[in-house]
Amino acid sequence: MQVKYPSDSITTLTDVVLPGETNPLNNLFGGELLARMDRAASISARRHSRRICVTASVNHVAFNKAIPLGSVVTVESKVSRAFNTSMEIYIDVWIEDRESGNKTKANEAIYTFVAVDETGNPVPVPQIEPQTELEKQRFDAALRRKQLSLVLAGKMKPHEASELKALFF
Amino acid sequence: MQVKYPSDSITTLTDVVLPGETNPLNNLFGGELLARMDRAASISARRHSRRICVTASVNHVAFNKAIPLGSVVTVESKVSRAFNTSMEIYIDVWIEDRESGNKTKANEAIYTFVAVDETGNPVPVPQIEPQTELEKQRFDAALRRKQLSLVLAGKMKPHEASELKALFF
Amino acid sequence: MQVKYPSDSITTLTDVVLPGETNPLNNLFGGELLARMDRAASISARRHSRRICVTASVNHVAFNKAIPLGSVVTVESKVSRAFNTSMEIYIDVWIEDRESGNKTKANEAIYTFVAVDETGNPVPVPQIEPQTELEKQRFDAALRRKQLSLVLAGKMKPHEASELKALFF
Amino acid sequence: MQVKYPSDSITTLTDVVLPGETNPLNNLFGGELLARMDRAASISARRHSRRICVTASVNHVAFNKAIPLGSVVTVESKVSRAFNTSMEIYIDVWIEDRESGNKTKANEAIYTFVAVDETGNPVPVPQIEPQTELEKQRFDAALRRKQLSLVLAGKMKPHEASELKALFF
Amino acid sequence: MQVKYPSDSITTLTDVVLPGETNPLNNLFGGELLARMDRAASISARRHSRRICVTASVNHVAFNKAIPLGSVVTVESKVSRAFNTSMEIYIDVWIEDRESGNKTKANEAIYTFVAVDETGNPVPVPQIEPQTELEKQRFDAALRRKQLSLVLAGKMKPHEASELKALFF
Amino acid sequence: MQVKYPSDSITTLTDVVLPGETNPLNNLFGGELLARMDRAASISARRHSRRICVTASVNHVAFNKAIPLGSVVTVESKVSRAFNTSMEIYIDVWIEDRESGNKTKANEAIYTFVAVDETGNPVPVPQIEPQTELEKQRFDAALRRKQLSLVLAGKMKPHEASELKALFF
Repeated sequence: MQVKYPSDSITTLTDVVLPGETNPLNNLFGGELLARMDRAASISARRHSRRICVTASVNHVAFNKAIPLGSVVTVESKVSRAFNTSMEIYIDVWIEDRESGNKTKANEAIYTFVAVDETGNPVPVPQIEPQTELEKQRFDAALRRKQLSLVLAGKMKPHEASELKALFF
Repeated sequence: MQVKYPSDSITTLTDVVLPGETNPLNNLFGGELLARMDRAASISARRHSRRICVTASVNHVAFNKAIPLGSVVTVESKVSRAFNTSMEIYIDVWIEDRESGNKTKANEAIYTFVAVDETGNPVPVPQIEPQTELEKQRFDAALRRKQLSLVLAGKMKPHEASELKALFF
Repeated sequence: MQVKYPSDSITTLTDVVLPGETNPLNNLFGGELLARMDRAASISARRHSRRICVTASVNHVAFNKAIPLGSVVTVESKVSRAFNTSMEIYIDVWIEDRESGNKTKANEAIYTFVAVDETGNPVPVPQIEPQTELEKQRFDAALRRKQLSLVLAGKMKPHEASELKALFF
Repeated sequence: MQVKYPSDSITTLTDVVLPGETNPLNNLFGGELLARMDRAASISARRHSRRICVTASVNHVAFNKAIPLGSVVTVESKVSRAFNTSMEIYIDVWIEDRESGNKTKANEAIYTFVAVDETGNPVPVPQIEPQTELEKQRFDAALRRKQLSLVLAGKMKPHEASELKALFF
Repeated sequence: MQVKYPSDSITTLTDVVLPGETNPLNNLFGGELLARMDRAASISARRHSRRICVTASVNHVAFNKAIPLGSVVTVESKVSRAFNTSMEIYIDVWIEDRESGNKTKANEAIYTFVAVDETGNPVPVPQIEPQTELEKQRFDAALRRKQLSLVLAGKMKPHEASELKALFF
Repeated sequence: MQVKYPSDSITTLTDVVLPGETNPLNNLFGGELLARMDRAASISARRHSRRICVTASVNHVAFNKAIPLGSVVTVESKVSRAFNTSMEIYIDVWIEDRESGNKTKANEAIYTFVAVDETGNPVPVPQIEPQTELEKQRFDAALRRKQLSLVLAGKMKPHEASELKALFF
């Protein structure tokens, strides 16, 4: 299988915040943003693997900034690292000011998807080669996150998690 | 007000077709696609004008190709021509094959939006300067469509619609 | 196939505007109205043809009047002209004042539907015979719109569009 | 306040059954039909009273006939009897066969609404005068239902419920 | 088939009221509450019968108390009595004050479900044995409601409705 | 502020999987489950703090088991640890077999919420005292997760994360 680049799977979902999608503070409801990110990330996973892809885990989502009713929200996702049958997807969310047009980062999220065949069994996916500086950083960090997740699940011994241990010394 | 380019307002809304959005033939329901195009177009209008924008008319939408359940649908909109307080938005809709990654044009649509202030009154918008060949064609055709719409509404005499008449001679 | 009347396909969809269907000015969101009109029109097309019907195009929708949150909205559609396998549907949208009960026209729209068999192939539909004065006007105008749409799509030469040319002389 | 007729409040909500509104047997989900009937009935109540109206109770709904995916469903509601500040709304639901066009009664429902002012306090509504035979039957039965509901709630002594007692002798 | 207890089918659906689910007075829309209760009740029916269950009727719902936007709403349902192939489900709805945590009864509802096989034919369900005082009251009243419903539908002669008659003497 | 127990904030959201909430494999769509968990967790946070609560982060969600169309899904959430103004919420998701009634764990998730006042500023929340063995384990692990999240965000030096370091030695 040929190697691919993060830019091959870039997916942009720009949409407005309607009244039916807000919480009592009149900001975008957390659950609705999680659903939008999941839809964009599933498309990135599919563009990378050309397979049916299902959500395996949500590794981290930080809601740094409230997104008010009426905002234009851009969800941009791409594959940050491919493992055997799984892919880590990195998602950046931006909002823009209507009057100035300035864009502000609202939050980041990391989802993992698995590629499956029609019967739901995992299948291998192409490897990835990061190109920009940011893509390289995210590619490296993806391995630490993978090890961390294995350690926390009891599927890897802490002393084997070489990348992760480096963080603490 | 400074002149703007169509690329200043380009808006991409990529999303999947979920089971709840299909018709009895298992294709994307027409009404749901109309709603997605309206949301994308409203963002293009807002990015061009930096104002609140409301739908003034849908001038033409051709549903050339059915969009099956599970498709990845890309709605791409940009301002094709600005008039005094209104903007014509041209929308292209693409679907892509999961296995090959090939993109196919599914349909085109033309919407008109008006920029308004907080009380709902129309306000002027920047003019536009088309750059690519396609943008120029759409810019020219927009005037014919505008005249046509005025003639059909009885607000312009047919013999004054110079651009439009040229079509018939 | 027997001839039918526009009144055979009349469809009424009366519903309220809920908070989840409004735009930032607290009026009915354009996309939601487009979806409601598409659902009503698809029923008219089906009542005329007794077939599965799919949206072929939206020819014109004018949003003349904002429809505020809480309004009672009546979408009324009927077939205005039948061609070989397609039908033009004319839609009138009314809102009514709660206190006086007065009805106001909010907008008009024209959609085209195609009748298809279970595999999605077009099938012929009955012809139509307009009866009221308004039905006759819309029946005649439907042919001009049909020719216009063929000319704009490059599928008919302008000088062959006899009905349409008459407009300009 | 002038007397009104049931026909003054007649409301028709014709709509299709989309895939997102079905239960595991592929029929219209009970909850969705309850919601559609509530919206239609609230419009009837409002047309009768010209007031804001809120659901007071659902007195009876019989789901006699499953409504399959893709059906055209007509919900028709009108006020069957007016009391001091409340109105009983009688709702008939029809589905029609696509090929023959035949209409079948799918179910009936009875809702009660109360008219309120802007602060939510009940206000009087016009009385009603039934005209057709069916309207008269429903008008008479409405009083028995009202008494029954008062008896069951312990707000009326059974022996005072003259209309209701007549049923049992 | 073994006897079951009401507590075997208890179902709790706690959820918030979002802006897209409110009426013009900013309270939970009646239709949305009816749909939530239908979903909870269908789960109770299924837990009692271990079968697919469909809504047969809504016997009574009283909307005693408006439920404001942002409220936490608890819908709690359980089977109150089982007949041959049908089950009466009793539903209590509670809202709680955010600051004090106090719970208030907002309304009650009674739904009837029928257990069916995969082809939609009714199948027998286990009988039920009420345990608490409240369960016993509701169990007894369920028979009166059943008789009442048969009498009103003309399927039982009033003088045969022994339980019901007792109410009036 | 008085200490509270995890059981004070337990929230149960039992609901079915409808056709409009599924992915192309006919299982519950990841985004919809994320939204349901967010709603349940927000209620737990609110029951613990008696404040408005907003989603601060989603720390981990593992989708271990697909949830098929028609399933009964129980989302159960409670506060696992309280910090100064934030709360970690632990969520267990169960599905049950219709015929046997057996419950299976489908997935777990960890969300963090912040309590805020009406203007959106963080406010302190009560501390928590775990009671069951499982609650104690989750309480302890919450501190490691908190430190991990601070280390990964560069807000804590790895050697200060005493709880976390213990994992690796």
